[in-house]
Amino acid sequence: MLDNLKRYKVILASNSPRRKELLSGLGIQYEVKVLPDIDESYPEGMDGMEIPRYVACKKAEAYRSVMQPDELLITADTIVWLDGKVMGKPADENEASLMLHALSGHTHQVITGVCLTCDGFQRSFSTLTDVSFATITDEEIEYYIRTYHPMDKAGSYGIQEWIGFIGVERISGSYFNVMGLPIQRLYTELRKL
Amino acid sequence: MLDNLKRYKVILASNSPRRKELLSGLGIQYEVKVLPDIDESYPEGMDGMEIPRYVACKKAEAYRSVMQPDELLITADTIVWLDGKVMGKPADENEASLMLHALSGHTHQVITGVCLTCDGFQRSFSTLTDVSFATITDEEIEYYIRTYHPMDKAGSYGIQEWIGFIGVERISGSYFNVMGLPIQRLYTELRKL
Repeated sequence: MLDNLKRYKVILASNSPRRKELLSGLGIQYEVKVLPDIDESYPEGMDGMEIPRYVACKKAEAYRSVMQPDELLITADTIVWLDGKVMGKPADENEASLMLHALSGHTHQVITGVCLTCDGFQRSFSTLTDVSFATITDEEIEYYIRTYHPMDKAGSYGIQEWIGFIGVERISGSYFNVMGLPIQRLYTELRKL
Repeated sequence: MLDNLKRYKVILASNSPRRKELLSGLGIQYEVKVLPDIDESYPEGMDGMEIPRYVACKKAEAYRSVMQPDELLITADTIVWLDGKVMGKPADENEASLMLHALSGHTHQVITGVCLTCDGFQRSFSTLTDVSFATITDEEIEYYIRTYHPMDKAGSYGIQEWIGFIGVERISGSYFNVMGLPIQRLYTELRKL
């Protein structure tokens, strides 16, 4: 369905199993290439909607010198945004517990920025999903952290894991965006290339 | 986490792979038991929000005579509701194509009714999710039907399949409800037992 991509070698700049699974679901052939030590910082005071798009483009810059003319690079960044602040990955189990207690009973935003880069062309966009957590108990939070070790996850949770099953009351927007890639929007943008 | 269920033998009255996957995700031990030829009809003019709850309870009635005192039965029914009408499973590829053309560019509702039945107790509820499709092309619809054969699916689509990736712009409500089981609500109800 994306025959227009056949002239490109598609590169996914992410090791996330969710992103790989979602991109594979589009039926695209691609390679994963991950550069080490990319600077993912952003200016202080930047709005949540802007940050992941900015970081995704910054990641793309790091690839500039190694890109081939026939390559199409997909970089992405996902943040959890609660009450005007970014929630990153937890440093330890204690911080994961604090984050999940903060999310419990509230609505937060998950924002993914995507940047598409090829020779002489760049396009980037952001997609926002509202996620509403039910009130979850101390016992449930402890069980989840102990069993699923969400230390590699922004906001300390994966929506496709047990905590998403029992804790997420509703979302408004794209589900796949919460998993890390706004796949319908990405498809639409790829069709236009 | 659902230790209160240990005194029951949980029975899922559904062969749907999605429902089995979701219920397993709660960490519950259960058996699948499906009776043949259950009457799934409902009164004409019934509201969309009421139909799946009504049908789920009707399914439970069919199990009454074979249920053991220690069993907890979970019956469920999911409908696709567009412009005040139920969209069932397509009779053939032509009807599947008509349904997907009707869903394209519009918002419809997916409603799942669940009925929990045990000795001397019954509880039922409905959960609604709005699903908004982008405009999808004839080519995409044909490709999906030819490749995924959605003949067993109400509304002729599975949100977790390719058409959900490329076609569903946004949802409002529970994603898992669209897959066939409102798992967060079900967990909450099961906790109360």
